[in-house]
Amino acid sequence: MTGSVEERVREAYRRNEQVARPEIWIGLRPLEEAVAEAQRLDARVAAGERLPLAGTVLAVKGNIDVAGLPTTAGCPSYAYRPERDAPAVARLRAAGAVVLGTTNLDQFATGLVGTRSPYGAVHSVHDPQRVAGGSSSGSAVAVALGIADLALGTDTAGSGRVPAAFNGIVGLKPTRGAVSAEGVVPACRSLDCVSVFARTLDAAEQAFALLADPAGVRAAPVRRPGPWRVAVPPVAQLGELDDGWAQAFLAAAERLAVAGASLVEVDLEPFSTVAAMLYGGAFVAERYTAVGDFIDKHIGTAELDPTVAAVITAARDIPAHRLLADLAELERLRGEAMAALGDADALLLPTTPGHPTLAEVAADPLGANARLGRFTNSTNLLDLCALAVPAGRVDGGGPFGVMLVGPAATEHRLAAVARLLTTPAPARLAVVGAHLTGQPLNGQLLALGARLVSAATTAPEYRMHLLDTVPPKPGLVRVATGGASLEAEVWELPAASLGALLCALPAPMALGPVRLADGSCVPGFLCEPAALGDAPDITAHGGWRGYLAATRQ
Amino acid sequence: MTGSVEERVREAYRRNEQVARPEIWIGLRPLEEAVAEAQRLDARVAAGERLPLAGTVLAVKGNIDVAGLPTTAGCPSYAYRPERDAPAVARLRAAGAVVLGTTNLDQFATGLVGTRSPYGAVHSVHDPQRVAGGSSSGSAVAVALGIADLALGTDTAGSGRVPAAFNGIVGLKPTRGAVSAEGVVPACRSLDCVSVFARTLDAAEQAFALLADPAGVRAAPVRRPGPWRVAVPPVAQLGELDDGWAQAFLAAAERLAVAGASLVEVDLEPFSTVAAMLYGGAFVAERYTAVGDFIDKHIGTAELDPTVAAVITAARDIPAHRLLADLAELERLRGEAMAALGDADALLLPTTPGHPTLAEVAADPLGANARLGRFTNSTNLLDLCALAVPAGRVDGGGPFGVMLVGPAATEHRLAAVARLLTTPAPARLAVVGAHLTGQPLNGQLLALGARLVSAATTAPEYRMHLLDTVPPKPGLVRVATGGASLEAEVWELPAASLGALLCALPAPMALGPVRLADGSCVPGFLCEPAALGDAPDITAHGGWRGYLAATRQ
Repeated sequence: MTGSVEERVREAYRRNEQVARPEIWIGLRPLEEAVAEAQRLDARVAAGERLPLAGTVLAVKGNIDVAGLPTTAGCPSYAYRPERDAPAVARLRAAGAVVLGTTNLDQFATGLVGTRSPYGAVHSVHDPQRVAGGSSSGSAVAVALGIADLALGTDTAGSGRVPAAFNGIVGLKPTRGAVSAEGVVPACRSLDCVSVFARTLDAAEQAFALLADPAGVRAAPVRRPGPWRVAVPPVAQLGELDDGWAQAFLAAAERLAVAGASLVEVDLEPFSTVAAMLYGGAFVAERYTAVGDFIDKHIGTAELDPTVAAVITAARDIPAHRLLADLAELERLRGEAMAALGDADALLLPTTPGHPTLAEVAADPLGANARLGRFTNSTNLLDLCALAVPAGRVDGGGPFGVMLVGPAATEHRLAAVARLLTTPAPARLAVVGAHLTGQPLNGQLLALGARLVSAATTAPEYRMHLLDTVPPKPGLVRVATGGASLEAEVWELPAASLGALLCALPAPMALGPVRLADGSCVPGFLCEPAALGDAPDITAHGGWRGYLAATRQ
Repeated sequence: MTGSVEERVREAYRRNEQVARPEIWIGLRPLEEAVAEAQRLDARVAAGERLPLAGTVLAVKGNIDVAGLPTTAGCPSYAYRPERDAPAVARLRAAGAVVLGTTNLDQFATGLVGTRSPYGAVHSVHDPQRVAGGSSSGSAVAVALGIADLALGTDTAGSGRVPAAFNGIVGLKPTRGAVSAEGVVPACRSLDCVSVFARTLDAAEQAFALLADPAGVRAAPVRRPGPWRVAVPPVAQLGELDDGWAQAFLAAAERLAVAGASLVEVDLEPFSTVAAMLYGGAFVAERYTAVGDFIDKHIGTAELDPTVAAVITAARDIPAHRLLADLAELERLRGEAMAALGDADALLLPTTPGHPTLAEVAADPLGANARLGRFTNSTNLLDLCALAVPAGRVDGGGPFGVMLVGPAATEHRLAAVARLLTTPAPARLAVVGAHLTGQPLNGQLLALGARLVSAATTAPEYRMHLLDTVPPKPGLVRVATGGASLEAEVWELPAASLGALLCALPAPMALGPVRLADGSCVPGFLCEPAALGDAPDITAHGGWRGYLAATRQ
């Protein structure tokens, strides 16, 4: 994070204005208040204090207490004004984060769609016709649009993961108990988890490290050594999926395998059975325990979402003996699920079976919602943790997301596996001058972790000029006619190193696609037209080394 | 890794020829043999087998058994031909790595300089006047030069870390016992660890996951939540350092703090006292136990390095009562060291106090060597693990390396902390056309995890042309005279995302430094001169949005 906290906060408000998505927010803090807080943080940083999240703008789901803002849980008449931040919010603020406001959600965190709210339906950042996912809809969209850097959600059935998938960001659902759920309006109290949204895995991991509650942290199970082992169910067990989603899922599994993970087939049956129990069984009764009295008193008012009210009201009459039977059955299925998982580090699943439109959800509010939880519903019941990450795009469609689900207390391990999916493939770079082997800037490449792939020549479409730089460099320029094949080397390096190289590049150099003699195109050194004016043409030497040899005394 | 295993292996041999550093190797495998193995691996991959290290070229330190090559420990007369790979080698080969050969080392792994070998002194890849560091000299240089992708070393006093620092790569020294040391010529058997060299943290972590021995893996201690806590000693406790090294160390600590780690001051005294015991005390007797008989029989022959022979011979007469006293003292100091570390995740240290020249080592073989182990010597005695990583350069000098030292079994945690140091800072990107907010390619930026930093204008040095592309894009070109300030937006994104964007860039677009009106320079969209020829000049509209507004029906 660069610049002052105040600058970052002001930019967040400007960005929020610019994107014009007021439905993201339930309670946006006044600009002046947030700026004043930012200035106090800037003063502390200037005084030498180290705040790991200084410059981080935070959005908080509307069912989590933020001192000074009403906690609504998406229902205006339910609102109360908490005196204290929830511990999760307090931890991030203590680390320097500035809260921008509280975000919209499916009312009482009951829903996976992001449309069940009197504050407005929230749509995906990638397609205004499709839902944002929920229940943590506003939090995910605020991060995806770059208004906030980090957001808190909650996740009982998948509310911290579904909207991550639909908006192309990272959603981390920690192990139950690892982050305090105090100061959170309960959905199903025994299952609720505070979750994290971020644009990168690093940011999500850092936030989790800060959020974790010493009283709730468990030891990770000892891992059997060897490659990361990822359990992948057969596609047939995933049920019906949107068009192209099975292919996108298989492509994600393939990418893990190519990156070195060992894939093992897993029987998804116990997971699917548990998932179906979450809403189909007796566990929904806990939602009535949480807010049933309130709903009974306000039934029929405009501030209650009718679908949410219907779901929770229906839970009133579930008899306790059914809950007890479900709990026993869950225990049995949990044994089966853990046996199926074996010593796998993670279970790979699509985060959802598809991405519905707002119209589809309106046409079938219960059916469309239930479908979305097919893969996420079982996680908390089975006492697992999970990480939803972007995994490319569906062919001809929007963003595709997968979920890595692992044993309790393995959040950092899931992040290591997810890195195999989210780290860009190594980049290639064509060099033609001072970066060639033996030339003065070659050490830069070695220091960036690059290795030579092969000697090469450019396609016969380039001319080379001698630039007036220190050290001397050639300028490569593509020409419509009269080009030549010139000597080059192709190097491989981490994508982050290529980005770093570009950031350090001095004018008049530029990087862009360079066509090689074999027809392939790789990023390589080009140069700005302005530098070519009087620069002598040295194409006839066949390359930089040829020029140097010819002009050496 | 792209391309076939065979291609990668052939390129490794070509690269080895090209860099002409024969002293790296003791036993290079015949090309035909390695290629035949590569072809068998390609066939297995083609048959659908998944090999996490397929395409990885491996170098193995000359004191580790590789079937078919002599194990020399750097002493030709000591050589024997092992029938089997050491388990560490076998694990990496089973995962698809191809061994290129065995590498040079300080004889019997006794030394931290890389010069104590009848196979030749090894110099740093960054300065031919300075030592490569040892004892795993050849392994580190083979990786740094990009001949091998991965190398095995051993580390008793620092042999897996010092050469990583001097050659700008990653050196991971696992917890004692986590990787089998069977098939390794012992230096001090109770302390020896097999270590990993790689160009990236990801590659080192992956290799460690594959190398770990189920029988030796311990559970990591439960971590107290909160920011990564890094213990940093006061510079005064580091003793004399080379010029600029104290500043480079403080800069690394600062970088960790900026990235969100919490720095705590630590008393280095117990660590320093233990480090001094390694060579100054009785523990060196274990080196005589290992190879003393051999050295006694060959003393005076040309194949024994005289410094190594003198060190080991001198250990013969150390009485057992001194060793017992040292062991008791070590136990006491270990308690002090662990108390000093407290709940820190890692201790940050320079990997070495400086980087000597070959001449300096020749002038004072014992003194120069002992100095190099000041920070590394204590790690194995204290039962800790460690990770040496590049940390920029010394002002006006060569690469600077730091070491993160942590409790047993915290290798992956050290990697997470090291990532704060080695991940490039977020990159900025100036966009002026189709990537602006609301324009057709803006979604690309959001999908790459970018966020808008601010609206901006370029310095008055540019002209804009309408390019013939789909979607329509402007071409920005810097001109010597007649330039204008044009509308831009500055975005921030992970360096890896910037690298990925560059890899996907279609001609005629290029990325290079763009000067903004505030005088700063950030990477931004430029374009190849060839595309500008007939492209209409639209500078007068003040930017892309201005042009679009003016031409909209």
